[in-house]
Amino acid sequence: MLDSARHERIGLPEAVFCAGKTAGQIAAIVAEAQARAARLLLTRLDAAGFGALPAATRARLDYDTLSATAILGGAAAAGPARIAVMTAGTSDLPVAAEAVRTLGFHGHAALRVADVGVAGLWRLLARIDEVRAMRVVIVAAGMDAALPSVVAGLVAGVVIGVPTSVGYGVAAGGRAALHAMLASCAPGLVVVNIDNGYGAACAALRALGGT
Amino acid sequence: MLDSARHERIGLPEAVFCAGKTAGQIAAIVAEAQARAARLLLTRLDAAGFGALPAATRARLDYDTLSATAILGGAAAAGPARIAVMTAGTSDLPVAAEAVRTLGFHGHAALRVADVGVAGLWRLLARIDEVRAMRVVIVAAGMDAALPSVVAGLVAGVVIGVPTSVGYGVAAGGRAALHAMLASCAPGLVVVNIDNGYGAACAALRALGGT
Amino acid sequence: MLDSARHERIGLPEAVFCAGKTAGQIAAIVAEAQARAARLLLTRLDAAGFGALPAATRARLDYDTLSATAILGGAAAAGPARIAVMTAGTSDLPVAAEAVRTLGFHGHAALRVADVGVAGLWRLLARIDEVRAMRVVIVAAGMDAALPSVVAGLVAGVVIGVPTSVGYGVAAGGRAALHAMLASCAPGLVVVNIDNGYGAACAALRALGGT
Amino acid sequence: MLDSARHERIGLPEAVFCAGKTAGQIAAIVAEAQARAARLLLTRLDAAGFGALPAATRARLDYDTLSATAILGGAAAAGPARIAVMTAGTSDLPVAAEAVRTLGFHGHAALRVADVGVAGLWRLLARIDEVRAMRVVIVAAGMDAALPSVVAGLVAGVVIGVPTSVGYGVAAGGRAALHAMLASCAPGLVVVNIDNGYGAACAALRALGGT
Amino acid sequence: MLDSARHERIGLPEAVFCAGKTAGQIAAIVAEAQARAARLLLTRLDAAGFGALPAATRARLDYDTLSATAILGGAAAAGPARIAVMTAGTSDLPVAAEAVRTLGFHGHAALRVADVGVAGLWRLLARIDEVRAMRVVIVAAGMDAALPSVVAGLVAGVVIGVPTSVGYGVAAGGRAALHAMLASCAPGLVVVNIDNGYGAACAALRALGGT
Amino acid sequence: MLDSARHERIGLPEAVFCAGKTAGQIAAIVAEAQARAARLLLTRLDAAGFGALPAATRARLDYDTLSATAILGGAAAAGPARIAVMTAGTSDLPVAAEAVRTLGFHGHAALRVADVGVAGLWRLLARIDEVRAMRVVIVAAGMDAALPSVVAGLVAGVVIGVPTSVGYGVAAGGRAALHAMLASCAPGLVVVNIDNGYGAACAALRALGGT
Amino acid sequence: MLDSARHERIGLPEAVFCAGKTAGQIAAIVAEAQARAARLLLTRLDAAGFGALPAATRARLDYDTLSATAILGGAAAAGPARIAVMTAGTSDLPVAAEAVRTLGFHGHAALRVADVGVAGLWRLLARIDEVRAMRVVIVAAGMDAALPSVVAGLVAGVVIGVPTSVGYGVAAGGRAALHAMLASCAPGLVVVNIDNGYGAACAALRALGGT
Amino acid sequence: MLDSARHERIGLPEAVFCAGKTAGQIAAIVAEAQARAARLLLTRLDAAGFGALPAATRARLDYDTLSATAILGGAAAAGPARIAVMTAGTSDLPVAAEAVRTLGFHGHAALRVADVGVAGLWRLLARIDEVRAMRVVIVAAGMDAALPSVVAGLVAGVVIGVPTSVGYGVAAGGRAALHAMLASCAPGLVVVNIDNGYGAACAALRALGGT
Repeated sequence: MLDSARHERIGLPEAVFCAGKTAGQIAAIVAEAQARAARLLLTRLDAAGFGALPAATRARLDYDTLSATAILGGAAAAGPARIAVMTAGTSDLPVAAEAVRTLGFHGHAALRVADVGVAGLWRLLARIDEVRAMRVVIVAAGMDAALPSVVAGLVAGVVIGVPTSVGYGVAAGGRAALHAMLASCAPGLVVVNIDNGYGAACAALRALGGT
Repeated sequence: MLDSARHERIGLPEAVFCAGKTAGQIAAIVAEAQARAARLLLTRLDAAGFGALPAATRARLDYDTLSATAILGGAAAAGPARIAVMTAGTSDLPVAAEAVRTLGFHGHAALRVADVGVAGLWRLLARIDEVRAMRVVIVAAGMDAALPSVVAGLVAGVVIGVPTSVGYGVAAGGRAALHAMLASCAPGLVVVNIDNGYGAACAALRALGGT
Repeated sequence: MLDSARHERIGLPEAVFCAGKTAGQIAAIVAEAQARAARLLLTRLDAAGFGALPAATRARLDYDTLSATAILGGAAAAGPARIAVMTAGTSDLPVAAEAVRTLGFHGHAALRVADVGVAGLWRLLARIDEVRAMRVVIVAAGMDAALPSVVAGLVAGVVIGVPTSVGYGVAAGGRAALHAMLASCAPGLVVVNIDNGYGAACAALRALGGT
Repeated sequence: MLDSARHERIGLPEAVFCAGKTAGQIAAIVAEAQARAARLLLTRLDAAGFGALPAATRARLDYDTLSATAILGGAAAAGPARIAVMTAGTSDLPVAAEAVRTLGFHGHAALRVADVGVAGLWRLLARIDEVRAMRVVIVAAGMDAALPSVVAGLVAGVVIGVPTSVGYGVAAGGRAALHAMLASCAPGLVVVNIDNGYGAACAALRALGGT
Repeated sequence: MLDSARHERIGLPEAVFCAGKTAGQIAAIVAEAQARAARLLLTRLDAAGFGALPAATRARLDYDTLSATAILGGAAAAGPARIAVMTAGTSDLPVAAEAVRTLGFHGHAALRVADVGVAGLWRLLARIDEVRAMRVVIVAAGMDAALPSVVAGLVAGVVIGVPTSVGYGVAAGGRAALHAMLASCAPGLVVVNIDNGYGAACAALRALGGT
Repeated sequence: MLDSARHERIGLPEAVFCAGKTAGQIAAIVAEAQARAARLLLTRLDAAGFGALPAATRARLDYDTLSATAILGGAAAAGPARIAVMTAGTSDLPVAAEAVRTLGFHGHAALRVADVGVAGLWRLLARIDEVRAMRVVIVAAGMDAALPSVVAGLVAGVVIGVPTSVGYGVAAGGRAALHAMLASCAPGLVVVNIDNGYGAACAALRALGGT
Repeated sequence: MLDSARHERIGLPEAVFCAGKTAGQIAAIVAEAQARAARLLLTRLDAAGFGALPAATRARLDYDTLSATAILGGAAAAGPARIAVMTAGTSDLPVAAEAVRTLGFHGHAALRVADVGVAGLWRLLARIDEVRAMRVVIVAAGMDAALPSVVAGLVAGVVIGVPTSVGYGVAAGGRAALHAMLASCAPGLVVVNIDNGYGAACAALRALGGT
Repeated sequence: MLDSARHERIGLPEAVFCAGKTAGQIAAIVAEAQARAARLLLTRLDAAGFGALPAATRARLDYDTLSATAILGGAAAAGPARIAVMTAGTSDLPVAAEAVRTLGFHGHAALRVADVGVAGLWRLLARIDEVRAMRVVIVAAGMDAALPSVVAGLVAGVVIGVPTSVGYGVAAGGRAALHAMLASCAPGLVVVNIDNGYGAACAALRALGGT
């Protein structure tokens, strides 16, 4: 049961979180949306899950492996990027990609800045002026998650940290990254749940909403 | 050592976090700011800490007990409120007050909506239209922290949850509230550290920054 | 060794918790119950586990995939529902189904109210009058688990929260939901273990016991 | 702001949780209730807090040290007990007393059964027939919290466990007791937050509500 | 490298913990022990691990599936049981079996008392006199782990609790059971690591050592 | 209510745990025991608590500051020590002293071996032969709690670890020490709750019980 | 994107952490390094991951199963060992091997001292003089992790503890070992993340850097 | 009992950890050291503890409030600094001061670099060349603890992180900082216990030992 009234209330259509849903359930949701001529974003749909969908369903969807997302109805046209999506390491890319796809679905381009973890500070500084020009910055980082603190000390826009569950030992699962972001000394850094690229994008859309 | 360059970079002057500082250290910081004719916000300065300051220092400061904040140089003139600050229960008021004072220091009025926890849903619904008119909503809540989820499902603006450390048993310390907010089903809800009213206000200022 | 004396003491026959039992053990228990002409409820018997039972055993059982339960001896006749079973999201359905099947086994119908999480408050309010007519309400919810708090503020009957282990990040495993329910501001909300739909149903039966 | 509409909705007036409120705030609430001729229950009001109230306020209140509760307007007349309140050890008495006072405020007597922890099993068995005659049993226990499991295996009524924060080492704070109760093998045992005697009493009132 | 000197020092030969060892490593250890005509106990060797051993190695070993143990060199002759091994539920049997096999390897019979969890108290009381005749009692229990507390309040001998990792929700992994045992009100109950039936048996052997 | 029947069942009289009891309650318990001519052990009675007792009560008690214990009726005569009580550092002494006093109350002398933490291994090795002659060894250790593992690898008797809550950072509260003991590689090491010197002594008495 | 500038700054080339990377990504990195004639260390590349690489890539790499590492460009010539790598048990060997391979890649031999856990103290003492001759000692240990404390009390050089994730119950995942090392009474013991043999080796290289 | 042999073994005299020791105990230790003409370092001796010492004892000690340390026998002569001690914020100063005093006691000067947290990156970069000239860098940081990661990516020497217990919410107690350091992406960063400035200094001394 999709909540079509929600779009009116908060400006964000409900996405379909596919983890834990059967292929049959997902196909039915897609069919129902198509019948209504509605666009639809599906998240947490991994390659195996996409492969298990009926061929007819797959044919209607624009699927992306890295972000594990599918889009029904095509991306919206996007103007110049007002949102940056940054990653500390390569393992953070899937989470960042989920954010980028969610933004694209809502008609927003994103400036992607990858592999700028603080252990290699110069790579970050080389890109910081581009980032400073954005209204919102999403930063996906796991492990020590120092990147969002550094970025929030350098840019004036909204900075949204997304802890990622990458790493091992004390980093495994993303709690260390989450706590580091919440405890950040940089004022005004906000945080979403671990691996929640979709949520970070929704927050960015809220921030751009009135502008 | 105050970082005066920071204001240029991120638009937010560094506040003075007074917990753990001696009266002598705080008085010196205030004196130095006054010498530079700078305005200053002091946070986490409880009544005992304020009382321990030299009389001359106290005379220069606008002190507020509930929020445990002091301001040097007076509040900025404020236009109509574009930010709501909501609380679930009375124990959440000090955290909300810290946010309101921080906003006032930066020239922003706040719409205050108190005592609207979800166990008494009708009180919340009676106020929701006012809240929907705001660009940003800060929601301070402890215990089960259900209020931010409900609010984020009803308004389109930026919603910033501040978990509070009120309560006992599993609620003590604020982790239960923090986790409930991070795990919220409402898309795009962002969160700051437990009891961090100052951080929530800074995030709100970032969101309003370009508008 | 089934405890047949227990039914006399507490009015609830022991159910067979199948997770961790071999097909041979389960088949023997079913055979022994049938020899005594006893009815039997089996829980946590997933589709693979059911499929691994001998065909003769399977033939005697009424199996339900969603709830992962099987019943020997048929459901009892049920009168009008005095118990509601509510779910916040689709991922909570298996836990709710375990509760409904347990109630049915004991001769109680249930009013099912699905997909009424607080992020879409209006769906909940549309159903609340039906729920208020019940003597007991079981609410299965994961993630932020705000639904039981809202419900316990709106109905006068017994409200039993069942945290579910759905979600990711801080929600994974159900601790966030459990803590949110225990910390609820709504007075008199009681809680059972994560994913324990069976236990919630038993508690509901205890509450109806003397009426 | 007391929620007088709540009583109509859920049959339970809001109690005043005094921890964290100033003497002035509490006195004002009492005065306001008296002006409305309303009865009032105040919880978590320790001896120091009560002593700090104005003499005029104190004179109106029926204060009890052990339970740290005060009542305005006197106890309701009570019929024969239908609820037992049990404790494992002497340290659990304050939590049990909070439950008993809450029940008394709502016109219910309680059968008190103290000091029957499972390490001295015979003391429990000597009292169990009395307990079996009750409709609801509240069991306050800390440390290993084995008592509610044993009781729930012996009585047919509603059994509500209240973990207490007594003890040291792994028991300190009450998490060990809480988890033991939630993990109980006895079917249908329900649990409230650590030290929440008030909540257990509210749950008991819900269970008796329709009878 | 087996530590043959250890037997002289502490009277306990080192057992071979097989989890994480390859079939080749295990076979080599067995061959080396046989060459020295030494007896050997292998623990945590599941059915798949045993099946992966060379046929020649398997032929020399007395393997037991439930306990996941294998013995080289046969069991020692055992006199009358002075140790009881009790279990709360059927899921605790593998851990108890590991203890029983370890005792048998060292020439001690065990009195087995199964399925006497406290939710069915009468089953426990029916067996307690047998247990009281033992010098040492090992109690394996998961979930709420109330059994060791009850037993330690009824018997005078050494009582060793072994928490088991059975269960789900807050019980999963065995921490709830471990904490309940450590927090027990019954004096002198001692505890070993979760699922450590081997360690409990070693402790029992230490206790019988001088007698 | 003291459980005088317990001594018959398990050979250990109930000690009075004084933390959380008022001076009046303690004085009444002592008076009641004296009236019965019973001996009595009081634990967790700190100097302030002892000082708050009535002078007449204090006069009857043999009080010891380090262990925070008091004894009514004098120590029993003790034969040669069969139990060692070891400490890693000076901060572990109060916990060890509680064990020694409990043993003395029951007529057992203890060999005390202090300040032999593993960071200074030679001090431990200089004393190990004395320790090896004992039937039971109690080892109190905080921080990394490596001492019980080393000792259990060197002696054949019963080894009981008591984690202590000394230290700071990750050691604070004693969980690190508790986990290190439970995870010990030395077979047959058993553990009691953090700071539970009384429980360790009771376990030692159980081990010596039949000899 | 490899950070070739890093070698100049900190003397350590970036290793390629292969967990979570696809075979295609790894092959591309190797090819790119070979094109630059650069040497390369790959870590966390298990046998399955290595097997999935293109044959041409595999042919260029020196692969080691135990350490799950591969080296492109061959090991550097090594002088006499100045670093010891010690293990408590056989399960710690893979972590130690990762450290040894990292050292070898940078031209340092290592003295390996295996299977010297403190439960068999004499094995450790038999090797300690060799270890004392080293400038740096890396100690990999899980479970109770007592070995690094003992070693740091016996040697004067740099001692680096690597907690390992071996074991079960409270030891599972390595937190118990990590905390025991951090809480060590031996002064100057330093620690890296759980299972981080690579990091320990890098720290050793930093310590030898100027010598 | 001071371990005078330790200095020979590991080159570090045992310091006296004063927290939890009485004034009498400390005075006795100082007297005993003076009798042996030994130098002595006392740590965790706060101003109240120092004030409680006998005047004669105080007169012999060089006391420092910020670091809560006292030295008997004067500081050793120090050559040019080879160790930097850095702090992220002012709350980290006491921990850093403990390290500096420990170094001074052993004859090593320290380069102090204060208030260079990553939220104000330019302050750090302005000092980095001085830091790069050192052989060892100690970095004390709480909250998000991003500073050690950034430093370890910029300098080649030994980098020792000391998490501090400053902050509130998820930062309180120092676990967030500890985990962030352990999870650092910068290779070879090593860590000591929370607030353990003494241990960090000892590790630095080990690293300089052979040079």
